[in-house]
Amino acid sequence: MEETHLKRRINETKFQIQWGDTDRAGIVYYPNYYKWFDLAGHNFFRSINMSPKYLEEEKKIIIPLLEAKCTFENPLYYDDEVTVYTHVEEMKTKTIRFHHDVFCEERRTGYGYEIRAWTSIEGDKFKAVPIPEDIKRLLKVR
Amino acid sequence: MEETHLKRRINETKFQIQWGDTDRAGIVYYPNYYKWFDLAGHNFFRSINMSPKYLEEEKKIIIPLLEAKCTFENPLYYDDEVTVYTHVEEMKTKTIRFHHDVFCEERRTGYGYEIRAWTSIEGDKFKAVPIPEDIKRLLKVR
Amino acid sequence: MEETHLKRRINETKFQIQWGDTDRAGIVYYPNYYKWFDLAGHNFFRSINMSPKYLEEEKKIIIPLLEAKCTFENPLYYDDEVTVYTHVEEMKTKTIRFHHDVFCEERRTGYGYEIRAWTSIEGDKFKAVPIPEDIKRLLKVR
Amino acid sequence: MEETHLKRRINETKFQIQWGDTDRAGIVYYPNYYKWFDLAGHNFFRSINMSPKYLEEEKKIIIPLLEAKCTFENPLYYDDEVTVYTHVEEMKTKTIRFHHDVFCEERRTGYGYEIRAWTSIEGDKFKAVPIPEDIKRLLKVR
Repeated sequence: MEETHLKRRINETKFQIQWGDTDRAGIVYYPNYYKWFDLAGHNFFRSINMSPKYLEEEKKIIIPLLEAKCTFENPLYYDDEVTVYTHVEEMKTKTIRFHHDVFCEERRTGYGYEIRAWTSIEGDKFKAVPIPEDIKRLLKVR
Repeated sequence: MEETHLKRRINETKFQIQWGDTDRAGIVYYPNYYKWFDLAGHNFFRSINMSPKYLEEEKKIIIPLLEAKCTFENPLYYDDEVTVYTHVEEMKTKTIRFHHDVFCEERRTGYGYEIRAWTSIEGDKFKAVPIPEDIKRLLKVR
Repeated sequence: MEETHLKRRINETKFQIQWGDTDRAGIVYYPNYYKWFDLAGHNFFRSINMSPKYLEEEKKIIIPLLEAKCTFENPLYYDDEVTVYTHVEEMKTKTIRFHHDVFCEERRTGYGYEIRAWTSIEGDKFKAVPIPEDIKRLLKVR
Repeated sequence: MEETHLKRRINETKFQIQWGDTDRAGIVYYPNYYKWFDLAGHNFFRSINMSPKYLEEEKKIIIPLLEAKCTFENPLYYDDEVTVYTHVEEMKTKTIRFHHDVFCEERRTGYGYEIRAWTSIEGDKFKAVPIPEDIKRLLKVR
């Protein structure tokens, strides 16, 4: 990773591949990657002390998904130790794009992104609203 | 199945084993059986025109699980066509015990039960309440 | 859908949203869309009498995933009846790109694609190989 | 827990409830308990340096499930920190019965068991065989 990464906020999510994550080919069933993306995105918010639960209950903000893509490079097997490295790749006024790199030891097995909308709950209504500047800064750098 | 089954209400839930249901041993990952039990239980209520959604929204009744058990007899593989046969094995004043038999063609691959409580929602509170007699009858026979 | 769709092979996969597909927001947990894409892709091969199981066992061909993307447009809820419409959007020499549209009644809730590689199993080795012309034709039109 | 637990081998499996583990009632979808049981059972073998992968590859032993049961006592919610405490409740000549207690802080939310068979792989055949005495001892006490 380049030097600029030193300042960029990157969060790590670690876990081990479970028996049920595999399929009859012996490798990880691909929809699991998106479960990890979802988890890694939630963990990213936790890493700046803004857990999705806190955002919802205290700030009336939810972060629904607009789009997610994953490219699969190498298989993952039962018992593999996995790390997902997550950073914010792009922010627009009301949306955040997380980039996720999935590694098993030194080998990247896949990567992709999630785009989420900063969404205000007002009664029964949901409305995308601008992300506050201080939160934007927290999401980008540490 | 014995002749007494002719009058007993039995509901069938059919599906095909998907790629992601299997594990690296090539057979179905066992927690899936409980997903099918849950689905088959919901379908049983649908079969008497009392879908869980209807019960919750119109009758303020939910049916949380108290206990579930499964015995595994034979493996299931990718592409297998499965039928779950569900009937009510026992009813107490406030609880229902569903029995589920899982078949692939003529071979039973597993069986088990779920015990659910007939539970009233009163505001924020949940309270097990007696199952109405007319619903008890519907659940037992057709 | 436009008139050219009349000749294009489109396969439909139908199912109902289950209790466990939802999350605490009451809507479908997004990684499920990729399970449906996977299922719809497998069903597409079944629709031309080339089930993935047949391809693997008889033709020594597997179809691993290279990339998958989904755009989420509208929420799906418990009990919703869903149809996934699948067609082949693009074929290159060794890869197939499936497009999936997810509908609940008349409303599209999401869409996306999967890119899969036509891969030969030779002993322990896997190698992307050209898709036979007759299979290409079957995949495209009916 | 009683004093006899001090000598009994108990293994702990810790994790956090994820967004996708919940359902539209806001609580954990019950089949997840069995995923945790499966994971906790695998971890128990890992804790005696006999991971299921090692057993399969080095010892030609697999440990298929015969039966699993869970009793549900209290709900679990998104973000909850969970610990599963696992010990061997009973061993017969060829079977092991794991007991699992699921706790969130001081509150037990459920408990249950898994019965697994000590099974030898001989070519294509599977056969339940006696559990070696030294492994029995390792499974019971530390």
